[in-house]
Formats: sequence, C-alpha cells, structure tokens
Amino acid sequence: MTSPIKLHVAAQAAMTEKDLRELSAQVFDDLRQLTGDGVGISRATYGEGETAAMDYMARLAETEGLTVRRDAAANLVIELAGKDPAAPCIVCGSHLDSVPQGGNFDGAAGVLAGLLALIRLRRAGIVPPRTVRVMALRGEESAWFGVCYLGSSALFGQLAADDMARRHRDTSRPLRDYMAEAGAAVDRIAAGDPLIDPASIAAYLELHIEQGPVMVARGFPVAIVTGLRGNIRHQNVVCHGEAGHAGAVPRWLRKDAVLATAELLTRYDENWRALNERGVDLVVTAGIVSTNPAEHAMSRIPGECSFSIEIRSQSIDTLETFYQLMRSEAEAVGRERGVSFAFDRRSLTRPAMMNERWIAHLLETCGKLGLPQEKLPSGAGHDAAVFANAGVPSAMIFVRNDHGSHNPREAMDLGDFLKGAEVLYNAVLDPPL
Amino acid sequence: MTSPIKLHVAAQAAMTEKDLRELSAQVFDDLRQLTGDGVGISRATYGEGETAAMDYMARLAETEGLTVRRDAAANLVIELAGKDPAAPCIVCGSHLDSVPQGGNFDGAAGVLAGLLALIRLRRAGIVPPRTVRVMALRGEESAWFGVCYLGSSALFGQLAADDMARRHRDTSRPLRDYMAEAGAAVDRIAAGDPLIDPASIAAYLELHIEQGPVMVARGFPVAIVTGLRGNIRHQNVVCHGEAGHAGAVPRWLRKDAVLATAELLTRYDENWRALNERGVDLVVTAGIVSTNPAEHAMSRIPGECSFSIEIRSQSIDTLETFYQLMRSEAEAVGRERGVSFAFDRRSLTRPAMMNERWIAHLLETCGKLGLPQEKLPSGAGHDAAVFANAGVPSAMIFVRNDHGSHNPREAMDLGDFLKGAEVLYNAVLDPPL
Repeated sequence: MTSPIKLHVAAQAAMTEKDLRELSAQVFDDLRQLTGDGVGISRATYGEGETAAMDYMARLAETEGLTVRRDAAANLVIELAGKDPAAPCIVCGSHLDSVPQGGNFDGAAGVLAGLLALIRLRRAGIVPPRTVRVMALRGEESAWFGVCYLGSSALFGQLAADDMARRHRDTSRPLRDYMAEAGAAVDRIAAGDPLIDPASIAAYLELHIEQGPVMVARGFPVAIVTGLRGNIRHQNVVCHGEAGHAGAVPRWLRKDAVLATAELLTRYDENWRALNERGVDLVVTAGIVSTNPAEHAMSRIPGECSFSIEIRSQSIDTLETFYQLMRSEAEAVGRERGVSFAFDRRSLTRPAMMNERWIAHLLETCGKLGLPQEKLPSGAGHDAAVFANAGVPSAMIFVRNDHGSHNPREAMDLGDFLKGAEVLYNAVLDPPL
Repeated sequence: MTSPIKLHVAAQAAMTEKDLRELSAQVFDDLRQLTGDGVGISRATYGEGETAAMDYMARLAETEGLTVRRDAAANLVIELAGKDPAAPCIVCGSHLDSVPQGGNFDGAAGVLAGLLALIRLRRAGIVPPRTVRVMALRGEESAWFGVCYLGSSALFGQLAADDMARRHRDTSRPLRDYMAEAGAAVDRIAAGDPLIDPASIAAYLELHIEQGPVMVARGFPVAIVTGLRGNIRHQNVVCHGEAGHAGAVPRWLRKDAVLATAELLTRYDENWRALNERGVDLVVTAGIVSTNPAEHAMSRIPGECSFSIEIRSQSIDTLETFYQLMRSEAEAVGRERGVSFAFDRRSLTRPAMMNERWIAHLLETCGKLGLPQEKLPSGAGHDAAVFANAGVPSAMIFVRNDHGSHNPREAMDLGDFLKGAEVLYNAVLDPPL
C-alpha cells in the first residue's frame, strides 16, 4: 500500500480540485486494499478491519498536523480548533465499519469528506469560526453484533449493558470484550454514563452515500436529507416445531418449522404490500433465515427455523402498530400449526427529523455551488439519528451511488463525492450559527 | 464397551426369549455407545460411524461362526448356507447408517433382526431350507450426500456416476472417495455394472421401525407393509435475487430472495393442503433452508436463499404431476418478484409395491404367533423399494416405535422388536417358496 504522505503538497497552500481528487482516490484505494476480503470489503465493528481503517485515517490526519485522539467509546476524533475554542463545536461524523463483504464507500465517504475539509482548512491556514471535529464512530452496522450505532449510542449513555453482552456473529465473544480491547471505557458505558455533553455540540453533519436508487434515477449528484427512518429489529426469532421423518408423519400431525416460518413471512409481506399500496412508509426485511445446520436432512421435517426481522418507517406509530401485528400473526400461525415463535430482545431505533435551519442552509449552499437543491428522506438509519434524538441539531448530505450499499458493487463517482465534500466544506467554513 | 461375546450360551443350544432379549439389548447399547454424538446417533454414510457399526456387527457374526464378507459396494454380508446352497437365497436387509443426530433403531433394528435369526439357527444347529443372507446396505440415508439407497442402488448398477460426484455435507469431498476408502469397486459401480443378479435372490425381507405415529396410535406391535412411497428430490434449489440495503430500496425495486422463497414454499404448502383434502397421497418437505451465511446481515435485502425440497407419494403420476406444478409455481414467483430459482439435479425414487404372496405369508405368520394381522403402507422409502423395483419379491415388517425417526427420541420397545424379529425368523425358517 502506498502511503498517502507522498501526495502532500506544500503546507499553507490551498488545495486544487486536482489535489482533492488525487488524495480522495488514493485514500479510497488504500482502504480497499487494507480491508478487502476477496469478495468485498469487511471492516468488522470494534474489530480488526474497523480499527485498521481508523489507524490509517489517524495517521493521515497526524501527518497533516491535525489533533488526533480516541474518545472513551474508542471512536476516532480528529480536531481543528476554531476562532472561539470554547463555543460548541461542529461534528462531521460517520463510520468506518462495514457489513461483511460490503462496499468501500458506506461510512468511509463521510469520514473522508470531514477529514478533507480539515485538511483543506489546515493547508490553507484558515481557522474556522467554530472548532470542527471529525468523528469516525464505531459500530454503525448491525451485521456484527446485531445492534447498530454502538459508538454514537455509547457517547450519549444509551448503549445498554445487555447490548454489550451481545455476541459476535462469528466468534460468539461478547461485544463488551471487543470494546475493551479497542480501548473503550466499558464500565462507564455499561453504567449508562454519558461520555459527552450534547450541549457542547452545535451541529452534527454527516455526508453519506445514498443507499437506494433514487438519486441515480433522478440525476441528483447530491441531496439534503429531511429525516431518517427508525426501525424495530429482532436479531433472532426461532420457530420451534417438531422434527420427524418427512414421509411418515401425516400432514395433520406435522409441526413443520419451515412451512410455518414461510407462512409467517408471507403474511408479513402481504400486510406490508397492503399498507404500501395505501402510501404508508414501511419496509419489512428478513435478511437471515436458517434451519439448524446440525439437524440438516432433506428427509427430516424441520423442527427448528430461525430468522432475523426488521421493520423500518419514518413514523414511530407505524413501527409500533406493525410490530404488534407481527407478534399477533406469529401467535396465529403458531396456534394453527402447532409451533411457537420465540423472539429475542427487541431493539428500537427511533425515527429522526433533521434540523430545519441546517436543511435550508445546506440547500442554499448547494445553490451557491451550482448544484441542484434537492431534498430526500433517508430510508436507512445513520448515526445522525442518534445525535438528533439526543438533541443535537443534525443534518445529512447524500451523495449519489449506484447498486445500493451493503454489497461490493457500491459505485460512487469520485466527482459526485467531491461535490458533496464541497458542500460539507462550505458548511463548516460558514455555519448558520 | 462390553463385548457381546460374554453373552454367549453354549453352541448347539436353542436360544430362550431371555437370551434373545439380553443379546438384543446389549447390541443396541453397544451401538449407541459406539456411535453416539452427544445429542443423538451419527453413523455417517460410507463414513466412520457406519463402518464402525458394520465392523461391530461383523465381529459378532464371526464369533457366532457365521460367514462374513463385504461385497463390491462395501455392504456387509453375513451368510448361513441353506439345504440347497445353489437355490436363490433369502436376503434379510436393512442399513446401519443414520441421519446426523438421529436415532439408534432406524436401520440397525433390521440388521440385528436378520443377524438374530442367523444366530438362532446356527446355535440351534438348524439348517434353513434356503441360504439366508443378512445385508447391512450402505448409505440408505440421504442426509450425508443428498441421495439415498446408495448400497442397494450400486448392487443393481443404478448408482449414476454423477451421484458418485455428490459432495459430503460437511467435508465437500465426493461420495466416490468415501466409497473407495470403504473398499467399494467404484469403477464398476460408476460404469453401471450390476454387482448382483436379481434372479439369485428369492426374496428380500426387511424389518424396520415404523417412522410415523400410526402403530402407536392403533396399538399394533408389528405390521406388514403393503407398499412404499416414492419421492422426487432436489437437494439444493437456489433463489437468486439482488442484495441491497434494506432501508433504501423501494418495494417495487426489491428482489428479495427470502420473501420469494417464503411465498414459493407457502404456495407448495397450499397446493399440498388442497390435494390432501381430496385424499391424494402426497407429502411436501423443505428440510433445509438457508440464506448465504457469508452475506448475513439483518439490514441487507437477502440476495440468495437456498433450500432442499422433496415430495413423496405412493403414485408415480401424483409425483410427476405435482413436480410439474412445483416448477411452474417457481417460474411464476420468479416472474412476479424479479428473482430466479435454480434447481440442481432431480433425483427420483419410484414408489414400490411389496410382494402379495409374501404379504399374505407374513400376515399368516403373525396370526400363528398370536400377533395382530395388520397391513400398513410405508410413508418413508427403504432399500426394499430398490430390490422390489429390480424385480426381487420383497416384503417388510414394521415394528412399533414412538416419536418418529431421524431424531434422538426414537423409542422402540424391546418387546415389540423381539415380536418383529420372531416374525422374520419364522419367515426364513419356513419361506413360501
């Protein structure tokens, strides 16, 4: 891997668009090489890949003369002091972890955009009005421990002790151990101590790739996010039926866990379709389904089938209403088929609205830069929701990206990224504060 | 493990019921100890557990002065010559392999019942009218390589070369390697050479536990089988959709492999229910279902979901008709949801009728022994189907068994087993030939 250091131009010189493009391209390439898994990118939450990407970003920031530290949740914090160091700061946050076999841009683009803004300011010798802090927040993806927004939740004392007991998808070791190894203050976090005062943050800004197809379809290089969907999730629901010989148990005596699960998921899907047709904002996903591999036999009635389930909506009422429907459908299918569904701990991420003043300011900035002034809701959740729900005025800049995210085919054009980064740079240089 | 040898009574002495009970109990205990896996019994096809059970049975037979050999398919063959050694023999067959975490009696009961008959004849110095051959047939269970009746199919030149290329569920090594290691003549088998002449076998008799709940419900300790269901199976059907971020892709653009699979399985189930209500003999089982573990993430639209599927019926017409329906339902769901279903190689086991003359004779024997004279169809397949379809007059004796089979809770009463073994003993002593 080539060090990004060789790209440095002389300090105290404004960066050209070419400088920005070359540095960005190099960082994305280096991250891809550093954390590629042969299929896609794997940067495990509070694990090797995430830490490697953080160390890489930290080294780049130090080389540029920026202040680098890890906070008590082991998040990476890079800072450039403003004219009034005592005033609440502006945080440019995102994450560096990825799902297994994920893409290179989901999360990393936001961290790099923040870091680019600091590097530009620093190289040009510009002191911003407020202190600007870039945060690479740990564990945004739920793929590794079944719960998301770990680093940001920990900051606000919202990471529950039983969430810290959740086990790693591959090793089964608890999250708490991984956090401790990464240097987090696990006792304070488990006790629910806030690690940061929301009042010390004037605004939370996050650049992120769009994870849906809307911006590609409509031709928006950047867009400003209006609000974020919340979600309710169960990492593991187990259907308990009764194993038996496939050929020998008559239909009326069978307690088939697979056919029961198939019917339940089909009912969820039908209810979702009906609500969707009425314009209700809702998404239902069972990303993981599996019979018990230890029992696998084609000719055995499956006695057990487990699955993950998540629902998303911009409305907390829709989430709670559909959730109750889901539980009662499970009861009904269980009764009819002689099986039972055991739901593990429910996790809720509340929907979040972005700050109106910041939305207006970012749209105005887009206009000044000759970019389309477009607003978009976010179907996916982000750390911005945690900051917003903690009372921090928050805003997000989406960058166009093809093929969605959470897969190796993510495709963000570097030109689009630089446009989004330009909006972010202008926002920290001239905040509406 | 205690050797069964210590149970020997003096040769040339008829065995009492107590002798038979003690020897049977010891053999079942020894097999359980020998091949227990902590949860149930695992005797892998052409693998360690099956071979260990065979070696144990072979040692017991040798101690009793019986002729022991392995045939060209590595099946265990134990023989006692009859009065007319040139006349076609009677085969008492079953299998010693089990599904993973299966039960102790499925298969082993039949091999032991045959062996007990030979030991009784030998100890009492009785020469049966025909040569009696006990066969422990390799690989009756499909759980390990996705295809069943390996040892019996190989005998009749019916084990296809591409079946021998099938891979072990855990190691992914091909069946052919396991067969070669067990001493089978893999080149002859792959070429489709018959290893045995069906005309050399006068009858194939198999004692087996019932794998359904009928005999327990009706109070039959033994029953005579009328016919066996056949089946059509696909070991692996893969639904190919498109992975994406769960929150970010609108419903109309999603290609969700799990919801598509759930709908397809639910359609199969609904069609089955409709036919079942009209009295059509049919069973549909998807014993194995799984999303791709390498891609697992709660918040990712599942791009891939695979499952096994088998249908069973006593009617070949029902099998073929329902199979066509299954394929067209898969096409329809694929079209509607933008996914595709890739079916691997289909395997067909034809339904089989048991021999009328033998059924009548076994029922008569039951009557003479004071047992109920009951007939029952077999919902499960057995090696008897392979022999019957190869033209060998075949018959089966079912023994009552609770909790079904293919699970560790199989529960056959030793008294019921001895009743079934008594019917088999009388059948080889006085065959209707």
